[in-house]
Amino acid sequence: MEFVAIVTVLALLQYILFAILVGKARGQDGVAAPAVAGHPVFERYFRVQMNTLELLAALVPGLWLFAYYVSPTWAAGLGAVYLVGRFMYFQSYVSDPAKRGAGFGLSFLPIMVLLVGGLVGAVLALLHR
Amino acid sequence: MEFVAIVTVLALLQYILFAILVGKARGQDGVAAPAVAGHPVFERYFRVQMNTLELLAALVPGLWLFAYYVSPTWAAGLGAVYLVGRFMYFQSYVSDPAKRGAGFGLSFLPIMVLLVGGLVGAVLALLHR
Amino acid sequence: MEFVAIVTVLALLQYILFAILVGKARGQDGVAAPAVAGHPVFERYFRVQMNTLELLAALVPGLWLFAYYVSPTWAAGLGAVYLVGRFMYFQSYVSDPAKRGAGFGLSFLPIMVLLVGGLVGAVLALLHR
Repeated sequence: MEFVAIVTVLALLQYILFAILVGKARGQDGVAAPAVAGHPVFERYFRVQMNTLELLAALVPGLWLFAYYVSPTWAAGLGAVYLVGRFMYFQSYVSDPAKRGAGFGLSFLPIMVLLVGGLVGAVLALLHR
Repeated sequence: MEFVAIVTVLALLQYILFAILVGKARGQDGVAAPAVAGHPVFERYFRVQMNTLELLAALVPGLWLFAYYVSPTWAAGLGAVYLVGRFMYFQSYVSDPAKRGAGFGLSFLPIMVLLVGGLVGAVLALLHR
Repeated sequence: MEFVAIVTVLALLQYILFAILVGKARGQDGVAAPAVAGHPVFERYFRVQMNTLELLAALVPGLWLFAYYVSPTWAAGLGAVYLVGRFMYFQSYVSDPAKRGAGFGLSFLPIMVLLVGGLVGAVLALLHR
């Protein structure tokens, strides 16, 4: 399970990096807290962080359920695809929100495989016990 | 623990369904990313997804702590009540935000029972070890 | 692991308390759902809740990975520092958003220690197995 733990931490550190970049954009674009809008470039950084938070809520339980009921190695591999997809998403969203599709797909699809795989694995474990 | 795993995945898939409906409303109501406001119907879908994310952060750890320290069967049952409550919340919020109370209560109360039950279970385990 | 479970539940209950205060501010400041802006005091409460959600996504996995790979006692202790820091963050943000720095630091730094410590612990476990 060590690889799953490592991928989990890397996904959380990547997310914290995105959050730090939001804080930086807040300063550069002059958007004072508590506002989260008012400058289009700040809003892109902010939406990348929020969308990453939205996916993390499903990624982390998905990683561990898939690892437990299906395969830790495949769970870690799918998590690595997520990590690459999220960096692509970040880069494309900040440069042009309309081009965020590929990076989104590459970070969203591994989560769907983890969740559906984990569900099937848990149902099979229930039937075979 | 299989039922707890299954309920966890179903809660995450329900949340992803709400997120997909936000994406659809984004297209239909003409709200281009990174904006998250500008059309009242889009905003309802968006708030349902966000509120569901807000509850998931507490639901998932609550499910597993309650399952471990109290009862996996009751954890899964409370999770099933949450699932039904969330669908009610979605339907009522989208049709009229003022009527979201019942669905909110039916998805929020199981989480409170899971958390308080898990806390009591963990304290008792600490005292009896 | 009981102390880690207890700190996890307390962090989630603290977050739910912040969410309840958002609901109260929504009523007092006349911000009807689905709006999440329009009154500066409401927006401060809302941002405290959102920022706490943003940190919880990293805190909860960090607590358990650190507890498993490094030390449950230290994990619980770092979680207790987070709890105090979050209350400071709440109080300072609501009175003056510009003074939120200390409370933010005291709740963010324990999470970084948990994540980096958990990562190092998992890598060492991988090398020594």
